[in-house]
Amino acid sequence: MRHLLDTRTLTRDEAILILDIAEDMSATQQREVKKLPTLRGKTIVNLFYEDSTRTRISFEAASKRLSADVINFSAKGSSVSKGESLKDTAQTLQAIGADGVVIRHPASGAPAMLASSGWIDAGVLNAGDGTHEHPTQALLDAFTMRRRLFGENSRGRDLDGISVVIVGDIMHSRVARSNLWLLKVLGANVSFVAPETLLPYGTREWPVTIYHSLDTAIREANPDVIMLLRIQTERMHAAFFPNEREYARNWGLNDVRVAGLQDRTIIMHPGPMNRGLEISAGAADSERSTVLEQVANGVSVRMAALYLLLSGERGESA
Amino acid sequence: MRHLLDTRTLTRDEAILILDIAEDMSATQQREVKKLPTLRGKTIVNLFYEDSTRTRISFEAASKRLSADVINFSAKGSSVSKGESLKDTAQTLQAIGADGVVIRHPASGAPAMLASSGWIDAGVLNAGDGTHEHPTQALLDAFTMRRRLFGENSRGRDLDGISVVIVGDIMHSRVARSNLWLLKVLGANVSFVAPETLLPYGTREWPVTIYHSLDTAIREANPDVIMLLRIQTERMHAAFFPNEREYARNWGLNDVRVAGLQDRTIIMHPGPMNRGLEISAGAADSERSTVLEQVANGVSVRMAALYLLLSGERGESA
Amino acid sequence: MRHLLDTRTLTRDEAILILDIAEDMSATQQREVKKLPTLRGKTIVNLFYEDSTRTRISFEAASKRLSADVINFSAKGSSVSKGESLKDTAQTLQAIGADGVVIRHPASGAPAMLASSGWIDAGVLNAGDGTHEHPTQALLDAFTMRRRLFGENSRGRDLDGISVVIVGDIMHSRVARSNLWLLKVLGANVSFVAPETLLPYGTREWPVTIYHSLDTAIREANPDVIMLLRIQTERMHAAFFPNEREYARNWGLNDVRVAGLQDRTIIMHPGPMNRGLEISAGAADSERSTVLEQVANGVSVRMAALYLLLSGERGESA
Repeated sequence: MRHLLDTRTLTRDEAILILDIAEDMSATQQREVKKLPTLRGKTIVNLFYEDSTRTRISFEAASKRLSADVINFSAKGSSVSKGESLKDTAQTLQAIGADGVVIRHPASGAPAMLASSGWIDAGVLNAGDGTHEHPTQALLDAFTMRRRLFGENSRGRDLDGISVVIVGDIMHSRVARSNLWLLKVLGANVSFVAPETLLPYGTREWPVTIYHSLDTAIREANPDVIMLLRIQTERMHAAFFPNEREYARNWGLNDVRVAGLQDRTIIMHPGPMNRGLEISAGAADSERSTVLEQVANGVSVRMAALYLLLSGERGESA
Repeated sequence: MRHLLDTRTLTRDEAILILDIAEDMSATQQREVKKLPTLRGKTIVNLFYEDSTRTRISFEAASKRLSADVINFSAKGSSVSKGESLKDTAQTLQAIGADGVVIRHPASGAPAMLASSGWIDAGVLNAGDGTHEHPTQALLDAFTMRRRLFGENSRGRDLDGISVVIVGDIMHSRVARSNLWLLKVLGANVSFVAPETLLPYGTREWPVTIYHSLDTAIREANPDVIMLLRIQTERMHAAFFPNEREYARNWGLNDVRVAGLQDRTIIMHPGPMNRGLEISAGAADSERSTVLEQVANGVSVRMAALYLLLSGERGESA
Repeated sequence: MRHLLDTRTLTRDEAILILDIAEDMSATQQREVKKLPTLRGKTIVNLFYEDSTRTRISFEAASKRLSADVINFSAKGSSVSKGESLKDTAQTLQAIGADGVVIRHPASGAPAMLASSGWIDAGVLNAGDGTHEHPTQALLDAFTMRRRLFGENSRGRDLDGISVVIVGDIMHSRVARSNLWLLKVLGANVSFVAPETLLPYGTREWPVTIYHSLDTAIREANPDVIMLLRIQTERMHAAFFPNEREYARNWGLNDVRVAGLQDRTIIMHPGPMNRGLEISAGAADSERSTVLEQVANGVSVRMAALYLLLSGERGESA
């Protein structure tokens, strides 16, 4: 692999390879000294055009565990804000010798443009672009599902036949999209639950079952996994949004709904959570919840992706 | 030790252990290559909810000298400002594998909550919380006093019988509080000098002598150490504050007061100084002044604390 | 060398030494593992009183390739903004054990003050001060010229007799000044091209030919190198500035002008470029353009400067 830009174009074999290497990385993290020499002498730039401390420190920890040098480049206060184009920035990073660029950008497609432009030889990792994709989030979610549902010795296997229900603002969510594409290639059945106004135009063309009611979805989809998306409360004032009370009542995973789940169902959330809104404190802190495993698995998955993209020679084509 | 949260609960033996290890660390800093492999593979997060470049770079230098990986996490522009709770942040740091968390927080008690919560296995170092404590500042101050008053071969000893006068805005000062508790356990006599309005309610219950006049304190307490606190000049407009001129005249350490000190008395300040306000330029730059030694000793003391908290296994209880 | 403060006081031998060591550093960067152990255990502080992501990450990459520890100290939000003097900051950096300080400051002369003050033993590298100098930029420019005009085996030689035309806002440009002094000591002929209002008072005392028309300069100076300075478009509203259209027409390097250049002439720009203003896209992306080589060479030159200043003992005088 030369880049990790999306999950939509990832093959089943590539996805399983990343998950399996992430298992190896996770095993190294159990040891007293967690550092591997794998990427020693490599330079990884975190190029963040949007704030995201959680994602940035996860990539930073992953990079440092692999002994890479990390340079943080926040686009705030940089020459970017003086009008420098993505092209000039990319060429600068190329010229200082970046081996990998982890990019978070508000514009959908910016990481793909960076990777395909010829401006840069570095491996490009999409850390979230607009409403497009957030592939390492989907990979860490798939890793978490595989481990929780099938145990630690699940190397090599996919998610064939499991039922995943994703709830919330699908319209604006790159996490929902990345999960959908990855889960489909791994054989899972995916449902989206959202008010009609928070479903993007064209959703009905996607390989997904649509529900407007969380209760109906739980009853009919019989989920192995319920994934709650984070509600951006600052959007709650817009006309097509429910208010917080209405949202919590109809789409929040509250304690009553948790009590009605089958035993094996796990509860996922990409964090940070709005406790009491999309998820109750009881649900967030229950044994079903994988929220913290997701964060820990994020470091392992990002180590795996960085390893696949940046170790060895980078001469070959995509 | 599992955490370093305050000096109030520190025993005499623990305090002396930290000071003695700091002497060892200080010795390593004299060598050409200052780096020790002690914390190689450990990850230390600087979690700063308030700006404090001086404290942050002191901890960062200390961590890097011990070969730890450092991740800076400024709460500005992070998901914290999107309403993420300390709990979620802590669990995130736990999940990414932080071995140590250096926390600066505007709320008194936040580090203790972090340490006692069970959210995190990492060692917690309080780098200043509200008006509560700033334990590494007090430890570096004690280290500086011990070395100046008793020489470099003072390992193992305490500060029995020395007289320390602390001058300034005691009300808002975590430095004054941390110093008081540590100095008492090390056997020193402590005096506070401040206008009545800048003494916290309850001060008279503390094991400290109170003066309102610096001249009286110098005459009666016969100090080995005068420590000036930094005046937050932005507070000078409040009703219960003296104005700058009045402050400098009554509580500032000016050249006339310095001339009247006994020979052995040293002058301390946590920095950055307001020259001409709480301390004259002459006092700040005199041979009595330990201001720069305090900064240098800060790195040694923080290396000692990080070493004690983070080297070896962290399975044992507090 | 103890410090690198300007190019005006650099001797020919010193300048060639830096360029030659930069050639060695550049060679190491071609290898798979680019890291050298040279500055292991050294601490370099990037002390930036102005934002400059490009310069900061270039120094950061150079420092890390030499295995130094890097601490970034942005003066925004630091105690500097609470009124801490450069003296107090310098003494703090001294006390935490900084071996090198890379300083960017809006005040001309601040790096020289830092170096000559006695406040600090660390090597001081000027990363741009006011309208005074930006010596590593001039050195990377000279390195780029030497390599492009004379090939990679040009070690030991200077720039005797080449013609360099520098175009733009000379008045406010530390890059123009640093280039002028360095190019003169290396034997080049330098011309400035600018509207009268953008030439600093006293320019006519300098060893430089002045033109007001770029076409005239190209015809008469017969340049080997045309260097465009970045236009600060936010200054374009001031009374003594041409507007953007007028600037592009009279002083911009457009495709017509490029077509008229002799074959060997190269085009330089310190970046980031305003395409369509001081330089056309065609000129920026042509084979003559060295813009990306300049950035890459910047890392090599900064590695060379850091090596010369910080490796070995620092006891000797300037």
